[in-house]
Amino acid sequence: MTSFPRNRWWVAGFSWELSSTPLARCLLGQHLVLFRTASGEVAALEDRCCHKELPLSMGTLEAAGLRCGYHGLLFDTQGRCIEVPGQQDVPARAKVRAFPLRERDQILWIWIGDTRDAQPEDEPPAYAFHADPRYRFGGGSFHYDAPWQLIHDNLMDLSHLGYVHLKTIGGNPAVHMNASLSVTGDTQHVKVVRLMPASAPPPTYTAAWPFTGLIDRWQEVDFRVSHVLVWTGGMDTGSGSLDDPARGGFHMRGFHGVTPETEHSAHYFWTVATNPHPDRKDVTQLVVDQTAATFEEDKVVIEAQWRNQQRFPGRAQIYLSIDAGPARARRMISALTAEPTPTVAV
Amino acid sequence: MTSFPRNRWWVAGFSWELSSTPLARCLLGQHLVLFRTASGEVAALEDRCCHKELPLSMGTLEAAGLRCGYHGLLFDTQGRCIEVPGQQDVPARAKVRAFPLRERDQILWIWIGDTRDAQPEDEPPAYAFHADPRYRFGGGSFHYDAPWQLIHDNLMDLSHLGYVHLKTIGGNPAVHMNASLSVTGDTQHVKVVRLMPASAPPPTYTAAWPFTGLIDRWQEVDFRVSHVLVWTGGMDTGSGSLDDPARGGFHMRGFHGVTPETEHSAHYFWTVATNPHPDRKDVTQLVVDQTAATFEEDKVVIEAQWRNQQRFPGRAQIYLSIDAGPARARRMISALTAEPTPTVAV
Amino acid sequence: MTSFPRNRWWVAGFSWELSSTPLARCLLGQHLVLFRTASGEVAALEDRCCHKELPLSMGTLEAAGLRCGYHGLLFDTQGRCIEVPGQQDVPARAKVRAFPLRERDQILWIWIGDTRDAQPEDEPPAYAFHADPRYRFGGGSFHYDAPWQLIHDNLMDLSHLGYVHLKTIGGNPAVHMNASLSVTGDTQHVKVVRLMPASAPPPTYTAAWPFTGLIDRWQEVDFRVSHVLVWTGGMDTGSGSLDDPARGGFHMRGFHGVTPETEHSAHYFWTVATNPHPDRKDVTQLVVDQTAATFEEDKVVIEAQWRNQQRFPGRAQIYLSIDAGPARARRMISALTAEPTPTVAV
Repeated sequence: MTSFPRNRWWVAGFSWELSSTPLARCLLGQHLVLFRTASGEVAALEDRCCHKELPLSMGTLEAAGLRCGYHGLLFDTQGRCIEVPGQQDVPARAKVRAFPLRERDQILWIWIGDTRDAQPEDEPPAYAFHADPRYRFGGGSFHYDAPWQLIHDNLMDLSHLGYVHLKTIGGNPAVHMNASLSVTGDTQHVKVVRLMPASAPPPTYTAAWPFTGLIDRWQEVDFRVSHVLVWTGGMDTGSGSLDDPARGGFHMRGFHGVTPETEHSAHYFWTVATNPHPDRKDVTQLVVDQTAATFEEDKVVIEAQWRNQQRFPGRAQIYLSIDAGPARARRMISALTAEPTPTVAV
Repeated sequence: MTSFPRNRWWVAGFSWELSSTPLARCLLGQHLVLFRTASGEVAALEDRCCHKELPLSMGTLEAAGLRCGYHGLLFDTQGRCIEVPGQQDVPARAKVRAFPLRERDQILWIWIGDTRDAQPEDEPPAYAFHADPRYRFGGGSFHYDAPWQLIHDNLMDLSHLGYVHLKTIGGNPAVHMNASLSVTGDTQHVKVVRLMPASAPPPTYTAAWPFTGLIDRWQEVDFRVSHVLVWTGGMDTGSGSLDDPARGGFHMRGFHGVTPETEHSAHYFWTVATNPHPDRKDVTQLVVDQTAATFEEDKVVIEAQWRNQQRFPGRAQIYLSIDAGPARARRMISALTAEPTPTVAV
Repeated sequence: MTSFPRNRWWVAGFSWELSSTPLARCLLGQHLVLFRTASGEVAALEDRCCHKELPLSMGTLEAAGLRCGYHGLLFDTQGRCIEVPGQQDVPARAKVRAFPLRERDQILWIWIGDTRDAQPEDEPPAYAFHADPRYRFGGGSFHYDAPWQLIHDNLMDLSHLGYVHLKTIGGNPAVHMNASLSVTGDTQHVKVVRLMPASAPPPTYTAAWPFTGLIDRWQEVDFRVSHVLVWTGGMDTGSGSLDDPARGGFHMRGFHGVTPETEHSAHYFWTVATNPHPDRKDVTQLVVDQTAATFEEDKVVIEAQWRNQQRFPGRAQIYLSIDAGPARARRMISALTAEPTPTVAV
């Protein structure tokens, strides 16, 4: 069994990925087929027909469920075989394992418990900014040939911007290195807050919002086990408090679902939302495109880092002050993975 | 040693595959070079020069045999080195292992015994339909990244036609699922017969033969260890008996040589022959093309099935009534592999 | 630890390979980054940042050294970290291993000792023909998916010319097989000399040099552990002695650095120099191009040989008289690898 903190909701993808064909995806070491029936129900089954073991993801969707592409066995969303072409009765053992899959605010959440009987007692988290009329958003996903926690390291340490993203959002490395920084947290969260009061607004900001001069900028990274919320933005200096959750100005809301595929590979599901100003051109698509380009740069670095860690196995890393956030996130995951598995947790 | 029933003739390919260059092919775990000398003799040698181990398949063909492409050692069809450039004498140890290879009715048959000394006592089987003036034929071969017996399962169970071959020969799944079926056999054969009396002839049949109305159709699958003969066809209802081997009508004769390459890969050598009617356009090439397209579909499914079996190791399959034929073939192979190896068998 | 004779200078590449970007190269099992700083100093470091393990070869070159492409740590040519962006002090452990790298006559030589403390006491060998005004040269490199000693076997046995290089320099196999041959040597050298007095000059020779008739040809292969010097040429018969090192005529000087990458892969760094005649068109580039084409042919054969040796593990080879040179080179390497590692050797 892989060593992930199970017994919680993980991001399995986005609603718009479920189309007229089934979707094969491996999550937490489980090879799954995700699909939506013609009646609109979503489901996640083990991606293996119980008869001759063809991937069910090679099958076809019907109103009642998913039909295997080899001998035509039909499975419902609970994994029960409900038809065997060529014989009257369906054998009692004709079933495949089903996993709880929920669709909430266009995010697909899956529960893959430590045991076959572990079931969720609560619902997966809401994500308001996918449904908030003040916001527009876009997103995508990346497959990583690298362990999931290397993506955390990257997200929790924004000091790499000046080197990895030199060509896109990097700007002056010194600015990113010298911002104020606070790291706080508990057993289920790590929060990193960087404040840059009275800064010059970057070009995307001035295009999006009618700032009058210098702005107070913020970056709040709210790390949870299965996903990371990144809230960045700026408001006219003096127009409000950086402690006020309802503060005005231009906001960018990032959702980053990082789900292990295997011990050594991961899925990265992301969206970014902005609040268009009525008097300005909507920059959401521009921000989405820039974000995708930036994440491509991260992927190149992180996958190269992982390949190199495999070329130099068992070697110690040195610790720098910029590692405070990533290190805290790792300690939190480590404690959750080691502890007796809780019945329920989010 | 791989666990195949050795000590028998296996299909190594077709006569037309031996051209002016040697052919590298792995059969039953043996890496071989197959070739025909300028004098017309066919041979199978271990694909390794006994000097510096270059594959002999990289060499060149001469009248006397095959010359290695590194230092020019010349080997005859028995694997004896008969010339070493640059020195007078040929060392006694300069030889490579040779395997009996026969050419009969355009099929190449090879004998790879359990031991180096095991030799065939009989000749490989004839295949009349490659030489019968009433028939025309064509064929080809496929390489499978899947174990050979998964191909048997597919051939011995025609119920998959309606799902795998939906776009080609599939037609209505219910027709294939509900035909009459008999399964018989002994220690060296399994025979599956499906009869469909008084059926409407499919389009290829009506193009090939002047049927007057409904036809009696048959499918006879004659499974042997190394190959499968599939005889299908139809005749005007009432014009003869489905038990008469000399019955009239339109006939398709399929030859399917399935030879293990390794434990986990296989070669599939096939031909299909039809009996053109003097008053109709010959449909042989059409049938050959359709067969090739159909086998491509099988290959996609079977290789995906095998990859999935590796992703889910050690998992049990459920048994359905359509598995009667495939299961009987597997039991026969299993008995032959387990039993004390016979001196001779076909 | 890999079983190469360490504690000696090995060829790491050529001067012209170090440009404005760092060069990743694995030599003797060590993953290295090779680079030249803006100030002109060359260096070889372990290709792994000591912080988060990104390959340093993904970084950027500055006057002071090499800056990592993830968090911007800056390393000098000795592997010392001299700057950590975002913090004042550089941790004492922030360093990476450096290897002695020398540049001499446009060849890069590296020392990778058996131990971390093993250091060279002498300088790497000179190679006069890269600096000799009588000569012009060109060259290149090949990566081999084959163990380094298979390249030695090929270089030390020129009898393969007639078969492997049939289409390029081969000519009549019998000529190459029947030349006079002497093999001599000591613990650090093997020398193979082949003399072909009173031969017809080949086309390249007559284009390069105003020969008047038959020529005395020589091939001298001087095998050392890390590189092989191949001196071939011809002079008018009767115009001098084949024992005179200062003899006249047309000369080709080959440098062949063969450096293990891993146990099963290698780098082949080569140049060839000729002495243009004032009255003739310079054929150096033609000879370089022919050499590159010839080495491509060797690579195809040697990599196929290695793949085949892996398909037939543990099988004995037969010994032929043409194997005298290669066998002697292998015995020399074997003795050096087995013996207690010397402090210094070239």
